[in-house]
Amino acid sequence: MGRIAVTDGMSDVAVSMLKNAGHEVVLRHHEKGEIANGSLAAFDAVVIRSATKLFAEEIMASVRVDGGIRFIGRAGVGVDNIDIEAATEHGVVVCNTPGASTRSVVEITIAHLLASTRHITTADRSLRDGQWAKKHLRGTEIGGKRLGLIGFGRIARGVSEIATAFGMEVHAYDPYVSSSDVGVTMHDDVDEVFRNCTHVSIHCNLTEETRHLVNSDRISMMPGIGADGTECGNHIVSCARGGIVDEAAAAEALRAGQLSSLALDVFEIEPLGESQLLSHNSFHGSPHIAASTSEAQARVGTEMATLLIEFFETGKPSTALN
Amino acid sequence: MGRIAVTDGMSDVAVSMLKNAGHEVVLRHHEKGEIANGSLAAFDAVVIRSATKLFAEEIMASVRVDGGIRFIGRAGVGVDNIDIEAATEHGVVVCNTPGASTRSVVEITIAHLLASTRHITTADRSLRDGQWAKKHLRGTEIGGKRLGLIGFGRIARGVSEIATAFGMEVHAYDPYVSSSDVGVTMHDDVDEVFRNCTHVSIHCNLTEETRHLVNSDRISMMPGIGADGTECGNHIVSCARGGIVDEAAAAEALRAGQLSSLALDVFEIEPLGESQLLSHNSFHGSPHIAASTSEAQARVGTEMATLLIEFFETGKPSTALN
Repeated sequence: MGRIAVTDGMSDVAVSMLKNAGHEVVLRHHEKGEIANGSLAAFDAVVIRSATKLFAEEIMASVRVDGGIRFIGRAGVGVDNIDIEAATEHGVVVCNTPGASTRSVVEITIAHLLASTRHITTADRSLRDGQWAKKHLRGTEIGGKRLGLIGFGRIARGVSEIATAFGMEVHAYDPYVSSSDVGVTMHDDVDEVFRNCTHVSIHCNLTEETRHLVNSDRISMMPGIGADGTECGNHIVSCARGGIVDEAAAAEALRAGQLSSLALDVFEIEPLGESQLLSHNSFHGSPHIAASTSEAQARVGTEMATLLIEFFETGKPSTALN
Repeated sequence: MGRIAVTDGMSDVAVSMLKNAGHEVVLRHHEKGEIANGSLAAFDAVVIRSATKLFAEEIMASVRVDGGIRFIGRAGVGVDNIDIEAATEHGVVVCNTPGASTRSVVEITIAHLLASTRHITTADRSLRDGQWAKKHLRGTEIGGKRLGLIGFGRIARGVSEIATAFGMEVHAYDPYVSSSDVGVTMHDDVDEVFRNCTHVSIHCNLTEETRHLVNSDRISMMPGIGADGTECGNHIVSCARGGIVDEAAAAEALRAGQLSSLALDVFEIEPLGESQLLSHNSFHGSPHIAASTSEAQARVGTEMATLLIEFFETGKPSTALN
């Protein structure tokens, strides 16, 4: 049975699952220096969140010819804090839990989209300021409009399902996905999504290819008039990764009126701090909380426990990243 | 062909429809005093919104033995500003356009529900205050929870469809509706909805029966733990009419923690002004804008024009209120 170091916390349910399967679980944060000195080498597996960094040096210090870690579990999605190549070189399996937060991200994406089209944050702020701004808060419906999805992975598919229930027509672009869903129009050219859609939501990774994918040029392609003929303006939402939306370009488009709303959960620089976006009522945002729900956190734990159990039984979970 | 007075405005498309059908349309506001002096008696029909009041005195002044108005059209839903009994006595047909805003109200209901469960207004306010409150904004998912609908008319049914797409289990109470929808659990006792549901949305009229229907007793019946076992707290939304939610009781429940969120588009006193609700971050609101969309306003106009054309052709539209 395995010895598992959990450095950034894990839910009680997940710990129980592992103990019931006969494994030893040690919940304790390991500092960078400790890890470099081999503190993880006494374990068979380590589970981290974002706080612990396992780059080449740390991985090298955690493996031994006759033992050390053979499994790195990232409880969450992003693996920017793990050198996967170095792990592969040392025969260490890396797994994350990408599905655990899907539903939470889908829900906040729709929350942000509707908050934009119905001025929810401005409305609430005006009430708190003692105003009754009823006449200045006319919105538009999302039903009857086209929603463009940049990236068509599991989150985008979830958003697509809900958007369809609202009566939206879904368009998508994803060069890494060949199959489509019923009723979704796939495009080979990302520009076509912007040309067709008054509402665009971002669901891709940040790569050199997608950095500033949402820029002045593409925002200027958006039609402003809905598929149903309504002058609904153009609306962009991103709960994916900061840097995909060019924030300076988006702020300028908000100022010029080419963009009617922008909702962001992720930013080029986090924490956000000062930003010209904050001077626009047609912008609203949240501090990278798309996966911050009780349900997603619970699922992250049980999914990771399941992966560990599979690892100790089979040597490699089928969803391993390397 | 008919002579139609439009006192509170009408969309260009609707006016064109009427003119193309051969009717005369006079767009002009009539003051209360004018109407009492018979200014509407020179017309066959009048279309109002909420600004014009047609009570017994005004209706009496608008009819003639040999003519005067025979149709009152309310472009919108609420008919509090029309004395329907007096209209019936004088042989005047009254119509409203209840379906025109359905979709808009459905969308803002879901907007408010998700804004509550994901702290959208607090999140945005914290960003504007220069904070990065990521750790304090953990939300919960609506998927896997029970949504209770008080009233099960067309808006509630629309909300039910979307909620089902999100994976919610829908419960409803409506003593005036006998049929149900697939998958919706109907209750004979309104208390049962509160006992079963962590999320409740109001979709009934304000009557003596429904005034303060949402009170301390019923809020205290809500389970706080979702159908999926999540400690999600209790959440209430109302985009129906002010006065159905007892605001003082709700504010106290927010303070005590029995209610985790409250979102209101309608208030006991409008405009809202000062309110103890505004001291709670777990409250957010909007100034009665549920029907304030471009699409709803356009539909109100064309629906009313269609009713007028039907009235002049048949003498009584099938959806007349009297």
